[in-house]
Amino acid sequence: MPFTYNRSVRFQDTDAAGVVYFANVLAICHEAYEESLAASGINLKVFFSNPTVAFPIVHANVDFLRPIFCGDKLIVSLMPQKLGLDKFEIAYEITVSDVLVAKAITRHVCIDAISRSKQEFPSEINQWLETNRRDTEEAERRKSREITV
Amino acid sequence: MPFTYNRSVRFQDTDAAGVVYFANVLAICHEAYEESLAASGINLKVFFSNPTVAFPIVHANVDFLRPIFCGDKLIVSLMPQKLGLDKFEIAYEITVSDVLVAKAITRHVCIDAISRSKQEFPSEINQWLETNRRDTEEAERRKSREITV
Amino acid sequence: MPFTYNRSVRFQDTDAAGVVYFANVLAICHEAYEESLAASGINLKVFFSNPTVAFPIVHANVDFLRPIFCGDKLIVSLMPQKLGLDKFEIAYEITVSDVLVAKAITRHVCIDAISRSKQEFPSEINQWLETNRRDTEEAERRKSREITV
Amino acid sequence: MPFTYNRSVRFQDTDAAGVVYFANVLAICHEAYEESLAASGINLKVFFSNPTVAFPIVHANVDFLRPIFCGDKLIVSLMPQKLGLDKFEIAYEITVSDVLVAKAITRHVCIDAISRSKQEFPSEINQWLETNRRDTEEAERRKSREITV
Repeated sequence: MPFTYNRSVRFQDTDAAGVVYFANVLAICHEAYEESLAASGINLKVFFSNPTVAFPIVHANVDFLRPIFCGDKLIVSLMPQKLGLDKFEIAYEITVSDVLVAKAITRHVCIDAISRSKQEFPSEINQWLETNRRDTEEAERRKSREITV
Repeated sequence: MPFTYNRSVRFQDTDAAGVVYFANVLAICHEAYEESLAASGINLKVFFSNPTVAFPIVHANVDFLRPIFCGDKLIVSLMPQKLGLDKFEIAYEITVSDVLVAKAITRHVCIDAISRSKQEFPSEINQWLETNRRDTEEAERRKSREITV
Repeated sequence: MPFTYNRSVRFQDTDAAGVVYFANVLAICHEAYEESLAASGINLKVFFSNPTVAFPIVHANVDFLRPIFCGDKLIVSLMPQKLGLDKFEIAYEITVSDVLVAKAITRHVCIDAISRSKQEFPSEINQWLETNRRDTEEAERRKSREITV
Repeated sequence: MPFTYNRSVRFQDTDAAGVVYFANVLAICHEAYEESLAASGINLKVFFSNPTVAFPIVHANVDFLRPIFCGDKLIVSLMPQKLGLDKFEIAYEITVSDVLVAKAITRHVCIDAISRSKQEFPSEINQWLETNRRDTEEAERRKSREITV
């Protein structure tokens, strides 16, 4: 199964149109990314606040399929994919009561936090990518078996 | 026991000083308020997005005792108190590993959402206030017994 | 000339990595959109808070070319484009000291705010699209003349 | 005259109740603080992103007098006051069309950014406090003269 993150929609996430403000959907996806890193044993304080290696986002995109309301119970699925030795991409799907409400992608590069030059992934990120890849593949195999049957 | 809300600090909550941006601490307290309303059976979508009665905040204050970092596991305790027929106050205490890191208060008035004139609490809020008051009192009784012993 | 919006980067926009949090770049683009609507004579309070017609975002994407720091003076250029009778897209370019630091797109549909069914643009939006189109085209003509010379 | 900061209310500042989300009012006050530091010649990138001396907020409070809507043109007045050799407080008043809509206070201590121990103000902050004090006093003298007349 791909990694999933449960998140209630907060009043703060909404805007005067009564639904979640568009850019906050990407912030919610980033929370799922943080949660999956923590689940993989990574220390978030070191990773984000005082790192030697950083993973800035170079591209993000998001599609909004349905409005999302205060109190909605979101389930965010997260599927990372390696794009080389120093680049990965994460695909997110957000559902409410099994209905897809948004899809997003973030693309990250690995850099030295001081010089900001590109560098290869450290082992903890390779491990995180590997774990999540296997989980995602297994989910897809199971899904295709169900379809075949 | 007073109602408690568990919250991991997100990258988004932080600022360039490497700690949680001050105003976000109040937003985290508001999340605890939302969570306690939901725990009391209140429908958050109706309550916040399309209400007949609203509870705008007329005052807030917050004291910061220690810096809060990305990844920190916050426990927010929430103690509401009735201040009349149309006004209540919520006291919050935020701890990390049993250490108090921030304290806050929000004061709310009850108004008709259309006319914005003051009105008495609806029954669901009286019930929420009553439940949380009893929980808080019991916690304080137990604490004072422990001190006596 | 395309419409431009000047914006200083605030402490609140940054995260513990010391630069602007990625999703906030899209929020800054949305501010430029709001400013260009206001410049076209549209009442923002009515447009966003209590509309009969709404323009929810159905897609957004953003490319980050350079880190953006607290205090940076951003110039956001905005180029809207009609994609039919009920859909438009806005392209944004953000520069700091004439250097491109981010590019983004938001795609909007026009809906009835109550029924949420698609509907054709009201006249004020057609006018806003027309004004901004002419400004953008003129800027491009001038640019291509400069290149020819 | 006290330092003033002009700020349009953005869609992002609002919540599903159709008005500015309470904690965002404090963030808007902080923007006024940043703007007044910049007006005093302080480099915000150095001051906030990579400082040797930092000024964390230890207390904040805010009173909300009227709802604030998307598109509202806010004027934030800022009056800092020295509270000792290592502590200052800023009082803010926010008006819309000459009507007071919110009041706030932030209290800051001066610390060494590495050791986090208290330290005396550097000269640039003493100068910023002095300039703003004189501006505020002059405004108050003028106001009391007008009342006398």
